[in-house]
Amino acid sequence: MRLDPAEAMARFAAQPVARLATADLRGRPHVVPCTFAVDDSGRIVTGIDDKPKSTTALRRLANIEQNPLVSLLADEYSADWERLWWARADGAAVIVRGGAEHAAHWRLLAGKYPQYGARPPGGPVILVAVAAWSGWAYRG
Amino acid sequence: MRLDPAEAMARFAAQPVARLATADLRGRPHVVPCTFAVDDSGRIVTGIDDKPKSTTALRRLANIEQNPLVSLLADEYSADWERLWWARADGAAVIVRGGAEHAAHWRLLAGKYPQYGARPPGGPVILVAVAAWSGWAYRG
Repeated sequence: MRLDPAEAMARFAAQPVARLATADLRGRPHVVPCTFAVDDSGRIVTGIDDKPKSTTALRRLANIEQNPLVSLLADEYSADWERLWWARADGAAVIVRGGAEHAAHWRLLAGKYPQYGARPPGGPVILVAVAAWSGWAYRG
Repeated sequence: MRLDPAEAMARFAAQPVARLATADLRGRPHVVPCTFAVDDSGRIVTGIDDKPKSTTALRRLANIEQNPLVSLLADEYSADWERLWWARADGAAVIVRGGAEHAAHWRLLAGKYPQYGARPPGGPVILVAVAAWSGWAYRG
């Protein structure tokens, strides 16, 4: 049932979408779907891309600036509940807005998502140092 | 792009799975997948069922006891990014552990999920009064 950290990370990294939970200083949680990649150091990289947004003042960024603690979830749902599993990364995030590291993060994302095409977007990147990988599967 | 609250609620309610974000008093967020139903009053009901858990001391319950603020997300991912959408409910949760209302919540869940069979489980129910429905679709 419980997945070991390496298995949780492997399952998480292979998914196309995760959900990023942040919280403001009042403890008000906020959750959004995000595309992401896991780098060679096991850090999670997710970028603010050019997909149309409902607002430009993104709460995920404001929350991380107040409170770096984040939780990210990848999971698979099936009507056959014996196939359910999830994997979670809990850690601390920083926002990277420019420089060589920023460009490398976008190259990593563009390598995972052909949808970005030849010119990946250059918005802020959220970089998560994972303190704990955890996970669960109905069938262990 | 932005979905109006009624459309966000309708899309959310029709999904089989959501992700529940809670936070403890230190502002540490936590996110888990959950089955759920939306009741006639627009409240979200999600129960602690009998699917094997990685632990019995569930952090979602401990967090809600400390801090009732929650955020729930339903979304659809597709490799065709023009089909992406998400819907979110932000609100406050209470835990219901027994009584007539508790039984009614489980009947609602059993009506949505035939997987529960004839005898729905009787664990604690998280009942969310939604303060705001919001949502986004690539194609509005």
